[in-house]
Amino acid sequence: MYTFVLVHGSWHDGSAWAPVIQRLESKGHRAFGPTVAGHGKGVNKAVNHAESVRSIVDFIVGRDLTGIVLVGHSYGGSIISKVVEQIPERIKRLVFWNAFVLNDGECMNDNVPPHFRALFDQMAEDSSDNTVMMPFPIWREAFINDGDLDLAKSTYDLLSPEPYQFNEQLDLKRFYEIIHSGKVCCSFLNCTEDIALPHGEWGWHPRMSSRLGLFRLVQMPGSHETIFSNPAGLADKIIEAGRD
Amino acid sequence: MYTFVLVHGSWHDGSAWAPVIQRLESKGHRAFGPTVAGHGKGVNKAVNHAESVRSIVDFIVGRDLTGIVLVGHSYGGSIISKVVEQIPERIKRLVFWNAFVLNDGECMNDNVPPHFRALFDQMAEDSSDNTVMMPFPIWREAFINDGDLDLAKSTYDLLSPEPYQFNEQLDLKRFYEIIHSGKVCCSFLNCTEDIALPHGEWGWHPRMSSRLGLFRLVQMPGSHETIFSNPAGLADKIIEAGRD
Amino acid sequence: MYTFVLVHGSWHDGSAWAPVIQRLESKGHRAFGPTVAGHGKGVNKAVNHAESVRSIVDFIVGRDLTGIVLVGHSYGGSIISKVVEQIPERIKRLVFWNAFVLNDGECMNDNVPPHFRALFDQMAEDSSDNTVMMPFPIWREAFINDGDLDLAKSTYDLLSPEPYQFNEQLDLKRFYEIIHSGKVCCSFLNCTEDIALPHGEWGWHPRMSSRLGLFRLVQMPGSHETIFSNPAGLADKIIEAGRD
Repeated sequence: MYTFVLVHGSWHDGSAWAPVIQRLESKGHRAFGPTVAGHGKGVNKAVNHAESVRSIVDFIVGRDLTGIVLVGHSYGGSIISKVVEQIPERIKRLVFWNAFVLNDGECMNDNVPPHFRALFDQMAEDSSDNTVMMPFPIWREAFINDGDLDLAKSTYDLLSPEPYQFNEQLDLKRFYEIIHSGKVCCSFLNCTEDIALPHGEWGWHPRMSSRLGLFRLVQMPGSHETIFSNPAGLADKIIEAGRD
Repeated sequence: MYTFVLVHGSWHDGSAWAPVIQRLESKGHRAFGPTVAGHGKGVNKAVNHAESVRSIVDFIVGRDLTGIVLVGHSYGGSIISKVVEQIPERIKRLVFWNAFVLNDGECMNDNVPPHFRALFDQMAEDSSDNTVMMPFPIWREAFINDGDLDLAKSTYDLLSPEPYQFNEQLDLKRFYEIIHSGKVCCSFLNCTEDIALPHGEWGWHPRMSSRLGLFRLVQMPGSHETIFSNPAGLADKIIEAGRD
Repeated sequence: MYTFVLVHGSWHDGSAWAPVIQRLESKGHRAFGPTVAGHGKGVNKAVNHAESVRSIVDFIVGRDLTGIVLVGHSYGGSIISKVVEQIPERIKRLVFWNAFVLNDGECMNDNVPPHFRALFDQMAEDSSDNTVMMPFPIWREAFINDGDLDLAKSTYDLLSPEPYQFNEQLDLKRFYEIIHSGKVCCSFLNCTEDIALPHGEWGWHPRMSSRLGLFRLVQMPGSHETIFSNPAGLADKIIEAGRD
């Protein structure tokens, strides 16, 4: 049985994992879905990437969790890449679920199509607190394309503005040393209808996944938001990606 | 409940949609499968692209259909792109099912591998009426690869020579204005074993789909001819692609 | 009903096909899984590619098999491409299951990422008998990524060192004459989670498959080793790829 720590993506908070955790627990595993600092409703959004990383490290160390399968979704991939640098001895395997695997020195915006970057930059500039919000049409068509309109609306209500860390360049030398040493293994879980990043030149897989070197690929049908549209199926694939 | 207008591809006529329409109706929707001018057996084949488009516009206006989900398969993608230019107010969403999404000013032959173009040009030249017929080996291996031989043969008998519109360049400025304005939404339905256009450089998805800008991706297993090999499954995915 | 001859990949021997053969036979087909010369445990490994090819030709001619669906997996693709040159009249269809389709004059190492080639060359040089063994971490993560650890271990025990034929350049002019003439048809069976060759630039499909010209594509979920993780499902797809 495994201990999963699940790190959500942008605009989400840890509560989104609840049905996934329920399924993981029903199969005998332990699972935690902490909220990354700066995320969720009614909290301080003036948080940088290092502080967001620190909040997950603190969560893990505070509960003295070890032998962890550390899962990152989307933006969460950039978080788990930095978490493993600080506490590699507590982590057994990293699972990137349609997640950013940045090259050393890159920021997330280096890895999204130019028109997304321009849109995000403008939204952050227009905000009063350097955050970006997800526009509903993009959410409905490109994020939760496998859900119906009711699900798209009800889940949109759960989102909150994202602290704008997308231009922060990350030093990932230690991350690559750790994963290339084989001390911590890597998996990439790819939902085949995920077009949050468009398929092809800018797609999640194999562009992001190939940076991991030797990794385990697991795929399932579904959009970027199977956490909402198929949480039980997602949990089962997280187990397949995370086991041994 | 939705109103679907289904526009077939080359070599087909509207009767091919019958089992799809049956399924859509059984789920409470209205659905129509008109035959594009110049298509079907025993009809005048001297029809250009604008006349083919006109026949679908006339069908829709003649029945005073509104709030339509307009679906185009293959060649039908080039038809629905021009139909929406003429009657955008009647159309709610466009669904391109492994369909041509041409760039402004392009013809279909600009979007197929050179050896296909050479084959089609030669066949049209060799014909007495500027049509091209589908060779059976291509039909069996690359179009209906998920069917058995009996299905390949029985459905081949339904095909008819195609009026050769593949070199007609289309002005699509208005089409792109409409879809980029967001007034009419777009979906792309991709059958994952469709090799009517070969996967990779010349593939349907993401090459064609990415031209739509923001679009909803829906995928299903199957060949270019799931209209014959899995009509009920196709209908269900057309609903998923076409809803809201 | 069909006669299947199944040619295994590197590190495997013919016994790996047993559950696939059982399924094929249960559906009324005949199926054979010969061991390629130089493969299996406790045999002479000083065998070149031509001798390996010869062993399969001898198997087929010795049993006077005709009307064969000849299936090659991985390395086995390079074998069946040469077998058909010698006995085209006995072969009805070639099925490449995530298999090498080499261009004329190429060796297998021309078709794998440079770091694989370097690894293999080094292993062969370090061996006493010019063989290479599959490292367990690669087996577990990139070959049998859809299996659990027990299956990964139990099947790893079945592997044996591979005679190093990966740098042998193959004359395939006759192969391409035969398949482009249409006398022998081709299918490509692609397991969608097969990362034995990494997805993208170096992937099996469409890179290898597109070399076949007109071919039938069949896909199924699974890793490079569905022969172990899902033999019944594999057999069903081999039938779909091999029929008529």
